[in-house]
Formats: sequence, C-alpha cells, structure tokens
Amino acid sequence: MSDKRVTAAVIIIGNEILSGRTHDANLPYLGTQLNELGIQMREARVVADDEAAIVDAVNICRAAYDYVFTTGGIGPTHDDITAVCIAKAFGRALVRHPDAERAITDFIRANKREVTEARLKMADVPEGASLIENEISAAPGFRVENVFVMAGIPSIMQAMFRAIAGDLEGGVVLQSRTVTCRVPEGVLAPVLGRLQDDFTDLDIGSYPFYEGGQPGVNIVMRGPEEARLEEAATRLERELAEMGTAAERG
Amino acid sequence: MSDKRVTAAVIIIGNEILSGRTHDANLPYLGTQLNELGIQMREARVVADDEAAIVDAVNICRAAYDYVFTTGGIGPTHDDITAVCIAKAFGRALVRHPDAERAITDFIRANKREVTEARLKMADVPEGASLIENEISAAPGFRVENVFVMAGIPSIMQAMFRAIAGDLEGGVVLQSRTVTCRVPEGVLAPVLGRLQDDFTDLDIGSYPFYEGGQPGVNIVMRGPEEARLEEAATRLERELAEMGTAAERG
Repeated sequence: MSDKRVTAAVIIIGNEILSGRTHDANLPYLGTQLNELGIQMREARVVADDEAAIVDAVNICRAAYDYVFTTGGIGPTHDDITAVCIAKAFGRALVRHPDAERAITDFIRANKREVTEARLKMADVPEGASLIENEISAAPGFRVENVFVMAGIPSIMQAMFRAIAGDLEGGVVLQSRTVTCRVPEGVLAPVLGRLQDDFTDLDIGSYPFYEGGQPGVNIVMRGPEEARLEEAATRLERELAEMGTAAERG
Repeated sequence: MSDKRVTAAVIIIGNEILSGRTHDANLPYLGTQLNELGIQMREARVVADDEAAIVDAVNICRAAYDYVFTTGGIGPTHDDITAVCIAKAFGRALVRHPDAERAITDFIRANKREVTEARLKMADVPEGASLIENEISAAPGFRVENVFVMAGIPSIMQAMFRAIAGDLEGGVVLQSRTVTCRVPEGVLAPVLGRLQDDFTDLDIGSYPFYEGGQPGVNIVMRGPEEARLEEAATRLERELAEMGTAAERG
C-alpha cells in the first residue's frame, strides 16, 4: 500500500453557482470518487465567469496541489471562457484540436444539426493539451499538465471523470468509520478530544445535526489502516456505552 | 437606487464537505439571500479543518471583498478551530465573551445539562468581536470587522444570518429574467452573443441541461434595471420565435 498523500483541488466555474440559482452537484461526486482513488481533495473554489479570477485560481491551485479539476464554462456560448483562461494560465496559445473538431463534427452530423463556428469553438484547447473523451455529447474536456478541464453538467462531467480516472495516480486510500449517537455534541467533546490525542494517525471529525428537533452527532474517523480505525471505533463505542449513550455504526 | 456594487465571499470550513460525505447547503442559501440584499457573492472557498488554510483564506478574502461569511467549525469539539483561526487572522487574542458565556450557560441549565469546559469553549471569540445571536442552540456566532463567523448546521446558520441581515449594507440589487428553451446550446450561441454585445449592462448566462435525455438551456439575464431586462428578454423571445424555437419564462 502506498504511503504517499496525493492532493487535489476543484475549481467550480460559474456565476450561477454563486448566485444560488444552481446547486452544485459536482463537488460531492468528485470528493467521493477521488477519495476512492487515494486522492484527497484539500480545497475547492467557486469562481465567477471572470477571466482574472479563473486564471488566478488555476495558477494558485496547480502549484499547490498534485491535481486540479475544473468544472464548467466549456460550452459554445459567449460566457464559456474556461479554455481561453486555461491557455492564459499556462501562457499557451489556444488552438483548434483536429481530433476534437472531428468528434464534434461527426456528432453534430449524426444528430442532423448544423456545424457552426460556435460549436467548433468547443474544439479550441490550449496548445499541447490532451483531450478528455465525452461519450454523451462529443465536445471533449482536456488536460494540460496536472489540470483537468471538464464540463459543468453533472452527467457529462461524470462521463469525463470516468474517462480520466484510470490516468490518475492515487496514493494512500483513506478508509472511514462512522459512529452516530443522539446526544448534543458538547457531551462528547472530552471523549473525542482524548480519542484524537491517542489516535494521531486518524482524522476524527465530529458532525452535529438536528433530526426532528433533537441533536445528534456523526463521528467520522478516517485513516489509512483498517485495524486502527476499528480499534478507535470500538473504544469510542465502549466509552459511549459507559456514559449510557446508545450508538450505531453509520 | 444605489449604484454601488457590494461584494462578498463565503468560506465553507470542513473536511466533510471536501470528502463528499456532507453536501453543503449553505452556499445556495447565502447566494440567494445576499443577492436579495444587493450583495454579490463573487467567490466561495471550501477549506479543510486546517489552521493555515483557514487563516490564509480569511485574510485573502477579507482584503478582496466587502464582506466575508464563514460557515462551520464553531462547535465544542477538538476539530472546531474556526474561532482560533479568525483570531490569528486578525492578530487578536482569543477571549471568553461574558455575554456568550451567559447565553450558553443559561441554555444548558434550561435543558438540564451540564456546564462543561468544552461547551464554554464556544464562548471564546477574538478580542473585540461582536456576537451573532443563535436563537436555536444559544452558542453564538461572531463578527470581526467585515468577517461574519457562523455555524455549519444549516438551520443554525440561517438563524444567524437572519440575525445579521439588518446590519449588512447592500448596494444595487440585481434583478433577473430567465428564458428556457429545449434546443442544444450551440443553436443559441450566435443569438446570445449578439444579445450580450448589445446589452453590456446585463450579465447574460447560458446554462445547458439535459432533461429526459433531451438538451435544453436556461438563459439567465441579470442587471439592475427591470426595464432593460424586459427589453432583452423580449428581444430574445422574438428571435427564438423567428428561429421556430419555443421558449418559456422561468
């Protein structure tokens, strides 16, 4: 098993996420999928359809993390500026990729639609980029170095992610255990603090919730070793039982 | 009507959002509410429960935007480090706030629970911070200068936001019009590009979707003046009709 920690950031591009009109669904999908591949998402940013904001976010994140994934802004309309911004971020020219042009043209003709300049714009990528296949609507995503540029529509983004998952090099895969109990978080704080002190190899998170007006807590333990997680979860359950608090595995 | 653009950033603090386990619900709420107050959310960041990451995000955002709102990490457990981080970001000491201590103590006693150090930790705020009332579970949020620190649990975050909404100074309120049609986005690109060129005072976004396997587009126009929005929407509907494309207002 690899000991290496591999990190990622996600950049979600789009005014409509910031306005609250559209609820992002890509972040939880990517968090879950990356985790299974041994890649830890360490940061996510939602940025406006604004060139300077996108270029800055891409350049900061690609220097700070092993991988960067962007979603949104690669369609045919005037507000789709991601490809231009990625080209600027890398100081590369934007060029029409012949394979992308062919895939888009074939798809449009198969659907008896018109090949227009707006649609061909989706074949423009930074020089040297490799394409990410889009099995749903043909217009591809692309990769430049450690930055993967994907669509914003969740079904297409997921198809693109499936196309690249095999190329990603993960590190240690974090496993988790969840213990849930129906008490206020304050009751658990000392127990959890001591548990974290004794299991420094684990990341122990306490996530309070309200259900039917009653407080509860999900305690999530993450770490690379199953045996250690089981040890921590068992100790927590024992201490909760000693406090008279019922608990269940999540 | 104010012409001033007032901007904000949201910082969502929590490993569990990044792991994909918890779906954030606070961003769309804040985006919508702020918009109604004439405050435009220009950026959102999701950061890990990591001191350096939180301090950096807070300091960058508070310098760049009029307001910063944080959610998460203000509970009683070991992984709740937001208050400490905000104090560091401002170079202030962390002090126990007497009003917060009283509110928490009263609430705990009313619920016949024990006053513990872990619970009182929720009364620790950066020196000089003002409190944000929490009508649900007493432990308050707080404000330091232009940074508002709120809970992560959506019901409590929303109660805190209601408590501060009256103190926020908004600028121009952006209105919107949405026109929806069931064609691929590529068909609309030239029409939308020309519309944006002719209405530079509006922000025209094109948001493709798939419904029952068929492509559609929501065209969202935003701007400060109702009359201009109506003019743009009417022109768009006319041009769509000329193309034989049915459209509806969203």
